[in-house]
Amino acid sequence: MVVTDTLLDLFLETRKRSEEICQPLQTEDYVVQPIVDVSPPKWHLGHTTWFFEEFILKKYLKDYQQYDQNFAFVFNSYYESMGERVVRTDRGNLSRPTVKEVYSYRSHIDQAMQQLFESEITDELLEVIETGIHHEKQHQELLLTDIKYILGHNPLLPVYSDTFQENKTLDTNQHWIEIETGNYEIGHNSNDFCYDNELGRHTVYLEDFLISNRLVTNSEYLEFIKDGGYKNHKFWHAEAWDWLQNNNIASPMYWHKVDDQWQQYSLNGLQPINMNAAVTHISYFEAFAFAQYKGLRLPTEFEWEIAQNQFNWGHRWEWTESAYLPYPGYAKADGALGEYNGKFMVNQKVLRGGSVATPIKHTRPTYRNFFQPELRWQFTGIRLAK
Amino acid sequence: MVVTDTLLDLFLETRKRSEEICQPLQTEDYVVQPIVDVSPPKWHLGHTTWFFEEFILKKYLKDYQQYDQNFAFVFNSYYESMGERVVRTDRGNLSRPTVKEVYSYRSHIDQAMQQLFESEITDELLEVIETGIHHEKQHQELLLTDIKYILGHNPLLPVYSDTFQENKTLDTNQHWIEIETGNYEIGHNSNDFCYDNELGRHTVYLEDFLISNRLVTNSEYLEFIKDGGYKNHKFWHAEAWDWLQNNNIASPMYWHKVDDQWQQYSLNGLQPINMNAAVTHISYFEAFAFAQYKGLRLPTEFEWEIAQNQFNWGHRWEWTESAYLPYPGYAKADGALGEYNGKFMVNQKVLRGGSVATPIKHTRPTYRNFFQPELRWQFTGIRLAK
Amino acid sequence: MVVTDTLLDLFLETRKRSEEICQPLQTEDYVVQPIVDVSPPKWHLGHTTWFFEEFILKKYLKDYQQYDQNFAFVFNSYYESMGERVVRTDRGNLSRPTVKEVYSYRSHIDQAMQQLFESEITDELLEVIETGIHHEKQHQELLLTDIKYILGHNPLLPVYSDTFQENKTLDTNQHWIEIETGNYEIGHNSNDFCYDNELGRHTVYLEDFLISNRLVTNSEYLEFIKDGGYKNHKFWHAEAWDWLQNNNIASPMYWHKVDDQWQQYSLNGLQPINMNAAVTHISYFEAFAFAQYKGLRLPTEFEWEIAQNQFNWGHRWEWTESAYLPYPGYAKADGALGEYNGKFMVNQKVLRGGSVATPIKHTRPTYRNFFQPELRWQFTGIRLAK
Amino acid sequence: MVVTDTLLDLFLETRKRSEEICQPLQTEDYVVQPIVDVSPPKWHLGHTTWFFEEFILKKYLKDYQQYDQNFAFVFNSYYESMGERVVRTDRGNLSRPTVKEVYSYRSHIDQAMQQLFESEITDELLEVIETGIHHEKQHQELLLTDIKYILGHNPLLPVYSDTFQENKTLDTNQHWIEIETGNYEIGHNSNDFCYDNELGRHTVYLEDFLISNRLVTNSEYLEFIKDGGYKNHKFWHAEAWDWLQNNNIASPMYWHKVDDQWQQYSLNGLQPINMNAAVTHISYFEAFAFAQYKGLRLPTEFEWEIAQNQFNWGHRWEWTESAYLPYPGYAKADGALGEYNGKFMVNQKVLRGGSVATPIKHTRPTYRNFFQPELRWQFTGIRLAK
Repeated sequence: MVVTDTLLDLFLETRKRSEEICQPLQTEDYVVQPIVDVSPPKWHLGHTTWFFEEFILKKYLKDYQQYDQNFAFVFNSYYESMGERVVRTDRGNLSRPTVKEVYSYRSHIDQAMQQLFESEITDELLEVIETGIHHEKQHQELLLTDIKYILGHNPLLPVYSDTFQENKTLDTNQHWIEIETGNYEIGHNSNDFCYDNELGRHTVYLEDFLISNRLVTNSEYLEFIKDGGYKNHKFWHAEAWDWLQNNNIASPMYWHKVDDQWQQYSLNGLQPINMNAAVTHISYFEAFAFAQYKGLRLPTEFEWEIAQNQFNWGHRWEWTESAYLPYPGYAKADGALGEYNGKFMVNQKVLRGGSVATPIKHTRPTYRNFFQPELRWQFTGIRLAK
Repeated sequence: MVVTDTLLDLFLETRKRSEEICQPLQTEDYVVQPIVDVSPPKWHLGHTTWFFEEFILKKYLKDYQQYDQNFAFVFNSYYESMGERVVRTDRGNLSRPTVKEVYSYRSHIDQAMQQLFESEITDELLEVIETGIHHEKQHQELLLTDIKYILGHNPLLPVYSDTFQENKTLDTNQHWIEIETGNYEIGHNSNDFCYDNELGRHTVYLEDFLISNRLVTNSEYLEFIKDGGYKNHKFWHAEAWDWLQNNNIASPMYWHKVDDQWQQYSLNGLQPINMNAAVTHISYFEAFAFAQYKGLRLPTEFEWEIAQNQFNWGHRWEWTESAYLPYPGYAKADGALGEYNGKFMVNQKVLRGGSVATPIKHTRPTYRNFFQPELRWQFTGIRLAK
Repeated sequence: MVVTDTLLDLFLETRKRSEEICQPLQTEDYVVQPIVDVSPPKWHLGHTTWFFEEFILKKYLKDYQQYDQNFAFVFNSYYESMGERVVRTDRGNLSRPTVKEVYSYRSHIDQAMQQLFESEITDELLEVIETGIHHEKQHQELLLTDIKYILGHNPLLPVYSDTFQENKTLDTNQHWIEIETGNYEIGHNSNDFCYDNELGRHTVYLEDFLISNRLVTNSEYLEFIKDGGYKNHKFWHAEAWDWLQNNNIASPMYWHKVDDQWQQYSLNGLQPINMNAAVTHISYFEAFAFAQYKGLRLPTEFEWEIAQNQFNWGHRWEWTESAYLPYPGYAKADGALGEYNGKFMVNQKVLRGGSVATPIKHTRPTYRNFFQPELRWQFTGIRLAK
Repeated sequence: MVVTDTLLDLFLETRKRSEEICQPLQTEDYVVQPIVDVSPPKWHLGHTTWFFEEFILKKYLKDYQQYDQNFAFVFNSYYESMGERVVRTDRGNLSRPTVKEVYSYRSHIDQAMQQLFESEITDELLEVIETGIHHEKQHQELLLTDIKYILGHNPLLPVYSDTFQENKTLDTNQHWIEIETGNYEIGHNSNDFCYDNELGRHTVYLEDFLISNRLVTNSEYLEFIKDGGYKNHKFWHAEAWDWLQNNNIASPMYWHKVDDQWQQYSLNGLQPINMNAAVTHISYFEAFAFAQYKGLRLPTEFEWEIAQNQFNWGHRWEWTESAYLPYPGYAKADGALGEYNGKFMVNQKVLRGGSVATPIKHTRPTYRNFFQPELRWQFTGIRLAK
């Protein structure tokens, strides 16, 4: 029962946290989807709730009645196994269910879940609940980055919060951590929760390498810009070069040149760039090009995992050179939950670490985040290696 | 002063009416833009307000201070003369200004306008105010059709109002009104308000023709569908045929086949189709194809104008065979208001009449509405001629 | 028999002429399709041949055996009634049948046609043959304009012919021909061949107007460019303005600024622009904008037809303000030939006159040519009216 | 001098081989580009020639005069460092230079190269020549696969050659080769030619694995199809599933169901599928899905390299699970040749082995081929591992 109580606490705390994140929003902010990767906040609130209804309540709570079958249609994300759904690009076209209705849905599900907690929790059920909680934590991070995108691409550049601190000054002393050649163990190694893509602890042979103790700063990145880094094809992948031209990209996302001065939109509003903070909102393409420009490279995810206990991390997701691929022996889980990770293992890059938007206890040294190499709306940064 | 008082009344009544139309909406409904042609209701409310601020208050009200320069950027529609603006496709990405802020903006402008009415109104100013009022009436029609689109494309198919009556039963007796060969006068012919595209009253020679006393019914249109009308290329323009295939179109917009029964979404929600009501939400392409199928044709806008006093109209915009072209002697007005009509005079078809969504006194026998031939979200219908 | 003999002569002469047009080409020039509107020359040679096979030989020549069923698939253009065909955009992907095989096909069909001419020619057959001949003449014009596009968009800018004269110096004296108000007769009015879209001679009421005796020159058009005509939205339709921006258009097609000097690609190669020749390769959008800039307008197709015997024409297709619409009483012919004209009667503009590429006897005062308003690869020019 | 003589022989033999490959073509076949990945054969012939002119003759042959500056524009492929070039999608729009002119160009360059061979060949020069030769060999493979695409997508399905043998019967006995856990050496390890992406021999730790002695057969793949493999999302990556739906893919490229019988286009024409030959023309997406269906997986490129001396290979490029990434210590060469490999190291998958189209001596155990995961026009196959 101890485990169950703790889990209930974690469940309730997590559910509450999602709503706290949305607390500063106006109703209208919950609705829009300016680009396909950014979902409306009310969709996140509904989708994480649907996850508990669909995968837990319908299966494990006796006599549970579906709240509203339209909600399943609206809030399913990409689970092919779970039937028809609103196409992803159309999420921002849906004014209904309203924000209020979504909160009612949350509250209804939370009560049903609490009822479920009163019954006996099998190990299987416990595992699915844990997954549901971590799923919601993952969406909490997306909530923050999506909210930033929604507000930061509005011509009024509204402030989300005066206290959320994104761009802390780094200790800019740089030194290089040395790791020796040898075989190392990679992957999750405890009984705590992790995703299936971290399992399959295995050996990797690494040649000796050096890795920076800190992230690249805005000041260093600005030098790259001033040096013509965005205009010199030799630093860029062929695909990156096309992407730059087609999208007229010449600086990180959220950078604005106002009266010849670089400013940056953050969740506190538009502000002068803190030159000693870590550069963020850059794509893998840009991270790679910056490293090329410096005559250095990005670490692999394995190098990162082995060295990570010797430097600070967690404030920015760090692009690695590694493609997102299965670990040896990886096999997708059966059923819809098997769609969680495995089906994205092509054309994506691994990021390691965590960000200012990552919920507490949601990341760990073996956590493998992944995005397409052109995406920039997450809090992404650069750590160099050689 | 009589004129001014009447105009003030008309102004206030019009402003109030726009807000009444939106009264049944939830905040979320004001925000979304499911297709490019459908603007968010709050955008309509802001844009019509901006029109008064931009073209009247800034020029005619002494010491008037712009409410918020960001609003000009957000609520300019297509007036190239009026500077930068949010691209049309992005209107649905804007959560701010909020609905509440838009209503405050409206209230602020209304007060400033009332202040202006207290000063002397020159003829020039009177004309611009009149244009502003009719501009808002035009957007009232769009408000209703856009709201219908937003709600009618939501999977929950919410009801807008229980009382708004769209699909009245027609007197289905059909007879053919005969008009004799001869020269006829076309165009606006009084001192009442009209748009510049109706001016230039001129003579047109018409051969004798017959025109139906009533619109085509759902029942007649369903026969066309059942007869394979959507599958027989010979009824369709080449461009229409491609449009059908690319968009999988096989019935009017808002028709749903539920359990093998045709239903129709209206502002009252999803309901069985009233077979003796006029068919609506069809494109020019479909109107033309239906006429071909019947061995008949659509009237020209001139035929319609000459015959219109012999039949009932006003419940559905009626597609004509006429392309939207300038009348003889037409010249665009100077400045931004010159962008109102003239620049759309290519690749559009004229519609005559009015619809259930058209504000009272907004239409007249010489009114020329116009849309691209593939559009269907307006209340459009078919009157046959031969 | 006289008629038949003359028709046979016309047939043979027409068939020969198509091949003469292609005589300067290299085999490779026959194959490419740089844009969807430009078909490969070998496709034109095959398609005009297929027309005789499909609509005449298969129906009227006893025991005729189809040459090759793959050819029907390859050389059908847009006749939905005639079954499957290569999609238009893919014509340039077909290396086979080879040019030589297409010429063999032509020769085979010509022999079969001559055999047919030895039998009795009914009036019905005579009419279809005449249509086939005029169809091929129409494609001769396209052959020349398509060849110009193919060679004129090759970086080597090869010469087609040293003798083909495109840009003759005009008599630049301008005067305005006056036509009085009144009812006029429009449409074809003899027993000679015409297309169905010219039939239905009918009365049109015209207000008095003035029309220029000559086309607009390159010199006049250059003034428009230098005056910022392409940068001032007020001269342009909304759709035209988008088209300009999306396609970076700032001068007529085939104009090149070489060392700060305007040059023009013609079928004789790249040459300095003859300032006193008529401007050509401009879209309707540009023709309209130029007229706006001059404070004038384009004539309607009716004005043009009534005034045409008072000025020289035939060297450039002249954009009119008229949309391409059916004349009163127009009805599509039955069967595949009915697809010839009627199904294009939406979103196109009428051009009158003829061009340097138009075969002799192929045009006439009532001839209605038509293209989308953005197209420029034809020899198109501007005549002003007021 | 021995080295130089051998190199001259290799050069001449390679140049001759490219022309032999094109010998069965008609002139028209040299011109077309049906999809962006497939270049016109004459472009391959010109581009490989331009490579020798641009990187060798212009730099190393005294007083060398450029053959034609337009050719550099037309035949540059993707070398950003080498200035302007025809955009890749437009290669098929170019009728000029003609095939004959391209052959003259080849002959001119071959003579100049022979002249160069008479002078002293420095090591640096020798290396560039060797690269030029291997570059041409790589294009020989593309020539064959592109020709197959051009002919195999023509409705006439012409035969390229009666003797080219694509689909040999395999020994279908399957056994699993076992490799033990341990550290292994990966990468090129001799003085023979290799590309820079194979260098940087390094250690990799591999867990024990089993790999099949043979490729998957058409018979096995057909079973997958019949079993609904293309319709079951659980076998597919999310991106692959979208790709299937958007492109209506349900069998390997070149498979045709004729009268309910599966046939296959090969360079010998359309023929019944040899069920005991290796399946080919499948994407990585399909290879992965098939392995999932079998409960197995694809080998990594490292597993393949270590095991390859225990099985037959070379008749089909084999998709691996490995993303195309730099080996440790990889650095791009300076200058334009540095663009050869490195800039493609994102979003591509490694293939190992070689194909029926690969020139003799062009592949080797360490050769890393790479393509986007959706491409199918190469001779690609599947080897399973577990």
